[in-house]
Order: sequence, then C-alpha cells, then structure tokens
Amino acid sequence: MKTFNDLADFSNEEIQDLISLANRLDKRPEPNALKGKVLSLLFLSPSLRTLASFQAAMTRLGGGSFVISPDMSIHGLETRPGIVMDGAAAEHIREAVPVIASYGDAIGIRAFAERKNLEHDMADTDFHALTSLIDTPYINMESAMGHPCQNLADWKTLDDYDIPAHGGKFVLSWAYHPMALPLAVPSSTLYTAARRGMDVTVLRPEGFELPQPIMEKSREAAAAAGGSVRETDDRCEAMDGAHVIYAKSWSSTKHYGDRIADQKLRNDLDDWCVDDTWFDNALDDCRFMHCLPVRRGVVVSEPVLDGPRSIVIHEARNRMLAQMAVLHQMLGGQS
Amino acid sequence: MKTFNDLADFSNEEIQDLISLANRLDKRPEPNALKGKVLSLLFLSPSLRTLASFQAAMTRLGGGSFVISPDMSIHGLETRPGIVMDGAAAEHIREAVPVIASYGDAIGIRAFAERKNLEHDMADTDFHALTSLIDTPYINMESAMGHPCQNLADWKTLDDYDIPAHGGKFVLSWAYHPMALPLAVPSSTLYTAARRGMDVTVLRPEGFELPQPIMEKSREAAAAAGGSVRETDDRCEAMDGAHVIYAKSWSSTKHYGDRIADQKLRNDLDDWCVDDTWFDNALDDCRFMHCLPVRRGVVVSEPVLDGPRSIVIHEARNRMLAQMAVLHQMLGGQS
Amino acid sequence: MKTFNDLADFSNEEIQDLISLANRLDKRPEPNALKGKVLSLLFLSPSLRTLASFQAAMTRLGGGSFVISPDMSIHGLETRPGIVMDGAAAEHIREAVPVIASYGDAIGIRAFAERKNLEHDMADTDFHALTSLIDTPYINMESAMGHPCQNLADWKTLDDYDIPAHGGKFVLSWAYHPMALPLAVPSSTLYTAARRGMDVTVLRPEGFELPQPIMEKSREAAAAAGGSVRETDDRCEAMDGAHVIYAKSWSSTKHYGDRIADQKLRNDLDDWCVDDTWFDNALDDCRFMHCLPVRRGVVVSEPVLDGPRSIVIHEARNRMLAQMAVLHQMLGGQS
Repeated sequence: MKTFNDLADFSNEEIQDLISLANRLDKRPEPNALKGKVLSLLFLSPSLRTLASFQAAMTRLGGGSFVISPDMSIHGLETRPGIVMDGAAAEHIREAVPVIASYGDAIGIRAFAERKNLEHDMADTDFHALTSLIDTPYINMESAMGHPCQNLADWKTLDDYDIPAHGGKFVLSWAYHPMALPLAVPSSTLYTAARRGMDVTVLRPEGFELPQPIMEKSREAAAAAGGSVRETDDRCEAMDGAHVIYAKSWSSTKHYGDRIADQKLRNDLDDWCVDDTWFDNALDDCRFMHCLPVRRGVVVSEPVLDGPRSIVIHEARNRMLAQMAVLHQMLGGQS
Repeated sequence: MKTFNDLADFSNEEIQDLISLANRLDKRPEPNALKGKVLSLLFLSPSLRTLASFQAAMTRLGGGSFVISPDMSIHGLETRPGIVMDGAAAEHIREAVPVIASYGDAIGIRAFAERKNLEHDMADTDFHALTSLIDTPYINMESAMGHPCQNLADWKTLDDYDIPAHGGKFVLSWAYHPMALPLAVPSSTLYTAARRGMDVTVLRPEGFELPQPIMEKSREAAAAAGGSVRETDDRCEAMDGAHVIYAKSWSSTKHYGDRIADQKLRNDLDDWCVDDTWFDNALDDCRFMHCLPVRRGVVVSEPVLDGPRSIVIHEARNRMLAQMAVLHQMLGGQS
Repeated sequence: MKTFNDLADFSNEEIQDLISLANRLDKRPEPNALKGKVLSLLFLSPSLRTLASFQAAMTRLGGGSFVISPDMSIHGLETRPGIVMDGAAAEHIREAVPVIASYGDAIGIRAFAERKNLEHDMADTDFHALTSLIDTPYINMESAMGHPCQNLADWKTLDDYDIPAHGGKFVLSWAYHPMALPLAVPSSTLYTAARRGMDVTVLRPEGFELPQPIMEKSREAAAAAGGSVRETDDRCEAMDGAHVIYAKSWSSTKHYGDRIADQKLRNDLDDWCVDDTWFDNALDDCRFMHCLPVRRGVVVSEPVLDGPRSIVIHEARNRMLAQMAVLHQMLGGQS
C-alpha cells in the first residue's frame, strides 16, 4: 500500500482485510512489526485524536513518529505558489513537506478545507498540492473532502456492533453547531456507509444538501453493494427503523464560503440537537455515532451522549486500531 | 498496581520495593520490559520535569508515550459538567479523557488545584472527576493535593543520602514566593516524611498553617512509624539538629482562594529565603531539597542552591527512576 | 565521542568515518543499536529540521527522545546569572539544563546568538554557559557560531554528489534576506569547505565580511588540506568555474548588533538573490546548496531552487543520517 487517501481506492475485500488485521493487532500485539520505522506527522490543521492515535499506533508496532504542527515554534509555513517570500513566513511548504517526508518511511498529512470555493475544495486541490511534492507513502489525516482513517474506524465500529451491512439503516444527520464546519467527514461517511451496502438516509435542513457529485458517487456505490441512498429534511421519516444515527455538523453548501449567509441560515436551526425524542421510531438499540469532538447540548443532548446508545468512545479507539492496520500494511512489507 | 495516586495506598514495604526496583532499573536497564506499551500523558497544567521524565522513563523501558497539553493546537477542553457547549471549547473532558486513555495502557494526568475553595481542593474533587471517567490504570502527575511521583522520588533521595528514617530530622519549610502556590507538594511531602518515620517539623509563618486534616493524617502516620510531627514559626528551633530542609512555598490556608489577602500576608515575608544563616544550628551535612522549579534569590539563596548541601538535581533525576519503577509494576505484568 | 560541538575537534579521517557510518546506517538500518537510550532535546531557539531529524534518528536506532522548547507551557526559563527571580520566569537554566540532561544519555542543545556583541558571540559564550552546567555527552544543535550537524551533513552531501575535495571550487555567497541572521552557518560552512581541502570563495557585499578570526582559522585549515580561501564582492569572478554555490544570508559584521545600521546597509542589496544569471560562467553542473529554511524569490529564485542544480532536499535528509552516525558513535558504546 503506497497511499491511504480514500476508501474508494480499495475493494470491500481489501477493507475487510484491513479490519481483520486491526482486530488481530488488538488481540495479538506485534511490538516488533515496525521496529525502527518512522512516521512523519504533519498537521497544518489542529488535532487531538489523530495526533494521539497515530503516535500510539506507531509505538504499539515498535516504531516511532514525530510531529510538526503549526503551533510549534517554527518560522511560519508559506503555502502560496510563486510568491516572493519577503513577509513573515521563512519557509515554503515546497521545501518543508519533502524534507519532513524524507525523515519518515511514510508521512501523515492533515490540511483542512480552505472553505472559500466549493469546487476547489471538492477537488481536494490543496491536499493534492501537498502530496504532489513527495514520493513517500502517505496517509490522509483529513483533507478538504477526505478522512479515510475515520471512515475505516467507523466501518470497523459498525462491524463491532453487528450493525448489518445489508438491510442496515444508517442515518447521517446534520446537527447544529455555532460554526461552519468542513464537509470531509459527512461526505466520506456517506460514501463509506453506501460502500458497506447500507440503506443510507442523509437527513439535513434545506441549504445543507451535500454536494451532488458526492451524492451520485455514493448512490452508485450503494447500488453496486445492494444498498441505497436518499435524502430528506423530515426527521421522523429518516429515523424510522434506523440502526444507527451518525450526527455531524457541516457548512451550508448553498452558501459555501459565505460565512454571513451560512450563519444566518443556521441561526434558526439550533433545534437540530440529537436528543431522546429523535429515537421514537428508531430501532430499540439504535446507536449514536460521532467522529468527535462533539459539543454537548448543542450537537447532541447529554442523555444521548452519556447513554447506552452512544458508541463514540469505542469508535474513537477504533481510530488507533484502524491506523495500526494501515501502517502495518504500508510499512510492514509482508502483508 | 492499578493506580498510583497516593503513597497512603501502599505499605512501607511496597514503597521500599518500588525504590529497590528503581535502583535496579538504574543499574540494570530493561529496554524490553514495556515493549510496545503506550503511556498517555494528559497535562491540564504546565510541566517540564514531569513531561520529560515520563517520556524518558517509557523509552528506557522500551515503550513510548504521547502528550496532550493545553498549549497544543487543540480546540479547547471544557471541564464544567452539564454545560451547553456553545462557546469557544469544542470538546468536553468527558470525551477527551476516556478517548486519550483508550490509546494507552495507562494514563498519567496532571490537573492543579483550582484554589478557590479549600474543602473542594482537599477532597481532590477535580482530579477524581477526571479519573472517574476512565477504567484504565492511571498515575497522578500532580493533583490539587497529591504528587505521589515526587513523594516516591523524595523518599528514594532520602535513602540515597543515608538520611535516617528513624531519628532523622526533616524540616518542611515554607518559603517566600511572589505568587500563591498549590498545597499538593507540601501536604504530600509532610505525609511522606512522616510515613518514613522521621521527626518532621513544619516551619511556617502564621496564616500558612497546613490544613488540620493533613496534619492529623501525618501525625498518625508518624506515630505508627516511630516518628513525630510538630509545627512552629521559629526558624532556629525548627532547624536545630536538622538532617534536611525541604523548602517550598504555598498558599495561605487562612486566606485560601483570596488572592488579595494572601498577597498582603506574604508581602512582609520575603525574608523567608533559605540562606546560609538558616543552617547555623543544623547538622553539618544538613541537606537542602526542593521539588523544582525554584526561584533563585527568592525561595533559596544562590550559595545554598549551588553549594554542597543542595541535592535538588539528584532529587529531580530520581523522578525518572521512581516513575520507571511505577510503570514497570503497573504495565510490566510480572511484578 | 563525548561531545559533538565543532568539526575542528575531529580529524578528516574521523569525519570520513562518521560519513561512512551514516551511509552504512542508511543502507543497513540498525534498529537495536540504541535500544532504550534517550536523547534529550533542548531548544532555546526555534527548529523544524533539527527537531524532526533528531527524533527520527533516535527512532531509527531503536531509542527515543523528548523535546523541551520555549513555546511549551513551561514557566519561562531565566538565563541571566546572579539574578533575584522575582519576575515572570519560574525556573533558571542552572537547574533546568542539568535536570533535562539527567533524563537522557546525551543532550542536544540549540541556542542562537544573542547578536548584541560580536566578541561575546564569537566566543560562543552563551552556549558554553549552558554546556558548563552538565557532564553528559552533548551535541551542538546550533549555537552562536557553530552548527556541526549541518556541517557534517553538508560534507556528506558534497561527497554524495562527487564534488571534488581537491580542486573543487566552493562559493559561499551572502544573499539578501529582510532580517539580520546569525553567523553560525556561514562561519562553520566556510571552515568545513576549507577543511575538506576545497578552493573556497566567500562572496559578500561590503559590510558583510565574515569575522577575521574565522577567515584565518579557515585559511589555515585550507592550507593544511591543500585548498585555499579568498573573498570578493565580485559575483562574476567568484562564480568562475564553481562546482557549488552555498547561499546564506547573515548579519552585517560591520554593524553587528546594530539593527538599524544593518537594515540600512542591506536595504540596497535585494539583488543578491541567486538566479540563473549567477551561473553563466560556473561549471555546467554547478550545484546549489542551502541549509534551509530558504525564502523563495528573496534568497534564491524559484527556477534555481526547483531546478536540477538544487540539492537542498538531499542535503536536508543528510541531516538525519549525519546525526544517526554521531548518535551511534556517542551512545552505541562500541566505537
């Protein structure tokens, strides 16, 4: 495995192999697997879970990692091409990225969406600009549109809780949040559930439709796997018989990059907080998932988040295990 | 060992076993002991020695660690229970702590006292709120009232310098400092010296008495071990025949949480700086200890700190060795 | 090897041995060489490459490291001797440095020049003040006048590209930069190329002459090794037949410590940006080197930096390999 950038690059069998490997490494640790191997971790956007889980993953496999993040006492990284660097930034990513990559056997890169132009972000332009600078193996630690480590962890979580791939009803719901958030998690989560063959409902208020190309790609994936994708703004209809609700806030796509219009639209939507009433016609053991961090009392009510439906801690731990599997395949050489 | 939170949870034999183990690991390294094991390090308060010594300890035993600290580019951690998170903080400790813990085989947590209400802090309420969120093994890296890693290192330091457990005279002295500091180190140090069976004198100006429950607990421990605890504000009397003086500044307990009153009280006490005159009637080889960081010329004079009495660097190195012993017992599985 | 502070402390044979070792470790990894060994990394000045490459180097050799840097949530480090610490800083380097050193088997220290007084900096006074506090093995990670890790990496880079040691023409050129930068890299680079036996030209505008003692030391080293050192402000003359140009900006030595005078002098020199025209009478395959970070369009033009002459990424990767060799000799126990 040379890159881990998008679940779309892998067959369902390959995904299941990664999950089996994650389960095996959880049960039977391999502290010599990546002895002396180094993972470079480059964060151009903030992180807690990703930072911690990747470092832990490398240690558990016998290797190590180092972290470069924007809050470190480095000199400021310039990202704009063709610029005369006479301002504050002392180093350009065109040197920084290949150099950082050259110290590792693989590099993980995080760079959130710029969120000015939807087409620009949909093409993951900024992330590709970074990865085009290197030829080392790399892992997408969240780009404008992708978050494959989260996706793989979520797939494993659905398996762990025996949520059926075929006939399982997966609700991806928009939720209120005071700020406009990226599309990476909702877009790639939709695609992941579709690829798993589930019946997926995107529940969102008007103005927060996911981009059409994402909907299309997911519909095709679902059809191929025996599932389906639909969307609605009707909570009751969406939750009917649901096995799992995956809550996440995201930017308005109608007003993408227009902060004020987005804010205006979301201001009236603060009742989109997942609470017990949402589960009235869901399955009795309908689960609650979220990629974290999550705002209590805003995105989800405390009783739901602290109750038996919530599997968010298990889901977060799966990040580490999923990444161990990826790293093992990428750097281990023999699987 | 499931938790390392308070020396009171261990017998003197168990403490001596930990110190023997620390000595053994210093002489005969075991770089495979914790192969592939991960220690999560969560700092909600700043650190230098603890951060460095825990990371070094895990590496020496063949494992690794990762650090989450408040100055990292994370989203702000909310600690208040039952809050609607519509402000700056994007994540609550109720998720962050269990998630961070789930990536490690054990977690070290540091959270200083809030220093508003003495009873609240005496009960270590905030620290217990954190540890109640997890069921992984944990280590107290300094809470409102506890600093067991420092205590174990100090016990070892007293042993290393052949300061007698029985009949050894230990002076715990308040010292001047421009700011009101926590009670964790003085309280737990008093108890530690008492548990070791020493004759302990708490030397402090009026208004800086240590809390009565701490004094009581320490008196009982001293009595059981053949030692004693007394307090005074008379420097000369306190230092008479002393084997060791342990200097530390702390908040006024009389005005706990009242910054202005505390400041007013301490303003006149800047002659509480340990200098050579303090040692006039101490033993010739009376030692000077401090947990560091220490303010030169404020808490202690340069000649004392740089002179032969001072064993603070040795004491600080013992932090690493003491923690190696704790980690070895906690994660090694076979002691 | 007890210290790695200056290439002048090593014979050319010892330097070649280190480079051979670096090459061997690149081809045949030794992930058990430094098992359980700890490198303390103390940054009093910012870093990206050095931070990352030392951490990666220790991991590749089976050990580990920890980082203390000024942007961490520590309490502020006081450096002035004899001070009464009643201000913001809670800890003095006189404790911090020996404590941090005591947790490692070796310590790397970075402390840039103060750049107030040339004689003070030329004597590397501040760095020696730090290293005089410890007796552990230490590595200079850049001081006021030294950067031996960069020098060793550069020597290896010249070897890697078959640039002749004898008869090879090395141009060390000043370049424009909006700020006054330290003398460590240019001074130690000049000496390194001279020690390698090359014909070195220092190309710099008036007012930016390198200090006479450095010129003298380098002239002697060149003479002993069969090379030469000269200086000029004539670009055309300097580049005639050059095998390699090493660009770097540095402070005016004429106005050392006088920011305003330095600024005034450099303001007119922004045409000192290495572009294609510089290479008109150089060798066809004349290489471009720089220690990074480098300002695009300021120090060097984009076409040169992104073109085939530039070997800066290879050079930066050699930092890791050179440091692995140093660490292996210093901590491996058997060389």
